[in-house]
Amino acid sequence: MQFEFTTEFLETLQSSIVTGNKESVRIQLKELYPPDIAEILNKLELEQALFVYKLLDEQVSADVLVELEEDIREQILNSLTSKQIAEQLIDNMDSDDAADVIAELPDKMQGEVLAQLEDSEQASDIVDLLNYDENTAGGLMAKELIRVHVNSSAIECVREIRNQADDEEDIYAIYVVDDDEKLVGILQLKKLIISPTRAKVADIYDAKVISVKTNTDAEEVANVMDKYNLVILPVVDALGRLVGKITIDDVVDVRRDEETEDLQKMAGMEALDEPYMNISLFSMLKKRAGWLVILFIGESLTATAMSFFENEIAKVVVLAMFVPLIISSGGNTGSQASTLVIRALALNEITIKDWWKIIQKEIKVGLILGLMLGIIGFTRVVLWAQFVNIYGPNWLEIGLTVGISLIGVVLWGNTVGSLFPIILKRLGLDPAVSSAPFVATVVDITGLLIYFTVASILLSSIL
Amino acid sequence: MQFEFTTEFLETLQSSIVTGNKESVRIQLKELYPPDIAEILNKLELEQALFVYKLLDEQVSADVLVELEEDIREQILNSLTSKQIAEQLIDNMDSDDAADVIAELPDKMQGEVLAQLEDSEQASDIVDLLNYDENTAGGLMAKELIRVHVNSSAIECVREIRNQADDEEDIYAIYVVDDDEKLVGILQLKKLIISPTRAKVADIYDAKVISVKTNTDAEEVANVMDKYNLVILPVVDALGRLVGKITIDDVVDVRRDEETEDLQKMAGMEALDEPYMNISLFSMLKKRAGWLVILFIGESLTATAMSFFENEIAKVVVLAMFVPLIISSGGNTGSQASTLVIRALALNEITIKDWWKIIQKEIKVGLILGLMLGIIGFTRVVLWAQFVNIYGPNWLEIGLTVGISLIGVVLWGNTVGSLFPIILKRLGLDPAVSSAPFVATVVDITGLLIYFTVASILLSSIL
Repeated sequence: MQFEFTTEFLETLQSSIVTGNKESVRIQLKELYPPDIAEILNKLELEQALFVYKLLDEQVSADVLVELEEDIREQILNSLTSKQIAEQLIDNMDSDDAADVIAELPDKMQGEVLAQLEDSEQASDIVDLLNYDENTAGGLMAKELIRVHVNSSAIECVREIRNQADDEEDIYAIYVVDDDEKLVGILQLKKLIISPTRAKVADIYDAKVISVKTNTDAEEVANVMDKYNLVILPVVDALGRLVGKITIDDVVDVRRDEETEDLQKMAGMEALDEPYMNISLFSMLKKRAGWLVILFIGESLTATAMSFFENEIAKVVVLAMFVPLIISSGGNTGSQASTLVIRALALNEITIKDWWKIIQKEIKVGLILGLMLGIIGFTRVVLWAQFVNIYGPNWLEIGLTVGISLIGVVLWGNTVGSLFPIILKRLGLDPAVSSAPFVATVVDITGLLIYFTVASILLSSIL
Repeated sequence: MQFEFTTEFLETLQSSIVTGNKESVRIQLKELYPPDIAEILNKLELEQALFVYKLLDEQVSADVLVELEEDIREQILNSLTSKQIAEQLIDNMDSDDAADVIAELPDKMQGEVLAQLEDSEQASDIVDLLNYDENTAGGLMAKELIRVHVNSSAIECVREIRNQADDEEDIYAIYVVDDDEKLVGILQLKKLIISPTRAKVADIYDAKVISVKTNTDAEEVANVMDKYNLVILPVVDALGRLVGKITIDDVVDVRRDEETEDLQKMAGMEALDEPYMNISLFSMLKKRAGWLVILFIGESLTATAMSFFENEIAKVVVLAMFVPLIISSGGNTGSQASTLVIRALALNEITIKDWWKIIQKEIKVGLILGLMLGIIGFTRVVLWAQFVNIYGPNWLEIGLTVGISLIGVVLWGNTVGSLFPIILKRLGLDPAVSSAPFVATVVDITGLLIYFTVASILLSSIL
């Protein structure tokens, strides 16, 4: 059964730590999985976390290190010598995790740790992995995999598994290669188990195997695993030679980072690319200020738009009061529409070829939503006018101006919001740039023109 | 190698379909995987898709059906008899997919298909699965799994795999149960392969196994698999008896739906819960109108707020012109802050206990961003005033009013945006409700009060 994190657990553990009762700490952590221990260490004060960390077995401490938050991992690594890092941690890690940890070390330390590794093959695997861009299949893959020659037999496969796999690792498949180390197929463990030991690999392997290249984009890797329901994906080099494998848990992080990026772009900013708590004030400002200034400059056109109607506002001051209400309604509707379309594009529920269907749908939706808000807006003005004299004798015309403008602005906002992401995608840009604030800014400016034009017509007698 | 979808491919295929050349169609699809074929069928006209679908092998057609979009799957099912559905499709599916397909059929058809299934155990598995809520572990799981008794031997495991596993299925682990069918551990296939055939399961299995209950929430299932890096997760009933297994590809969809929901809520609407193209006009309106009306009613307080300053606006009409610019700047900054905090909460990068750290950070960020926009706003007014006489003799005071208000409104928007999601979470509500439009509405109302208060002070000589 998995661990439930509770305050009581933490308090008991902390009291053992404070009294320096190592045995009690060990007992409390004994039944837990590395991700649980990492969760606990993330919550402890640094000094206490270090105390606990040093009590862990080598293998467990390696597994825990990978799961820790970056800042505490850094502190732990700082407290160790390069020899300790190499022998206690890196030596117990898969090559992909090892490369990630080493990449986080200072340059000088990286060389020292690699030099201390006893297994020279492991060291060269890690050096190899460090060369790949982290956003490619090469950057995601691990070197550990079971490979057999297509001419070998089932019994040799079993021997290979004994030789190549360490105790900790789960294996899901055996990869079959030819004389040139080229990937030619896959052999499911199940197939191996149910085949006689004399069986030839050539007779039982499956030549239909999906693979990616080392330079395949990480996002594409995620898409391939997703589409073909794969839990493991072999990676080949430019010559088709088997060089590594990617497991699905590596890809879960890729997906999550991608979603975070999209979300942040859709909020009218650049993607942070770092966890919220780790990012520096300066980086945070850099990611946020650019779009804010662009939106500000765009939005300052609203002042220009309104200046065309200065005389109208001066004559009927009450017109100004509905400005925020009217433009924000257009912006809110547009933000709904753009988010729906951006997400549907991302999930391939729609493609840009569907633009006409989408527009037809959104014009209907926009018209009905506009009518709803228009009627509420009109009613509000008319009702208010019965009790307070704020709108003067032309309250009916003002009510109609508000109501009709709302229909127009909401319809317009909804159309702009749904069309913009499609246009951006058509232009080869990221649809997520068509953020709610961006759509709102465009709709604010044009919405004002709609509103004051309607006002000029309906209130022409007094303007 | 995986399939690359091209227009040329589609055109060649379509010309074979039009001429009724079945053999050519078969050859073109021969090397493709079911998800590729589904992708192609999704793009074809219904009649052509049906023509192609009927040419597929039984096993392939079952695999393709699961991958198809809902509307075309429905059409295909409608074109088949209950006997065909049972024998050609359901019989070739895993129980989880079979249950999903049957759940989509009309009620009468469901019973007919189940009655036609030759394998009565499969039928009862499906009926069993249909009882679970689709948002729980029970709704996600499949019944197919390899179970062995803890007292059995390695050779018996191999026999079980031969008996229980069909050809198509990949197996990743064997589950170990006791006399009462209770899950007691897991046996990795690798371990089985490298152990002698005489080995006892009791000596080689791993008693440390993570499981979930049938009523565990789907989101929690995703979290568990994610945290412990699992590709497969056993499901037990209330008595701890092994009843099914969940594979990670089932959970990928759960995650994606969750992200979509969050995104839609954050855009100021309810989650659609249906693909964009499938949702009816009425459902779409229902999901969007509620929040729009709430936001509209909230935003109508801006008219009330501005009515307090009617005299000021009447005297200095130009004040009204900067209203959209000032309030939108607060809203944009607030939308950035709320999105960052909502996402960081969702990823557990922060918890509500960090609120003080977050506020400190966001006050700094808000102040600097406010200063930036304030200076730009002030400069714009002052520069314009040199060329056009729109601001009258008090242009400097108006410039200062705009600049200082921007500092206040942006700082305030940023603080509200970052604090709201934390407060909602603290209250046990979904932080995603603190959407950009929601934050903007709150900031619009209060932003107007800040702006006109600053104006009243700085322009007191003429107001």
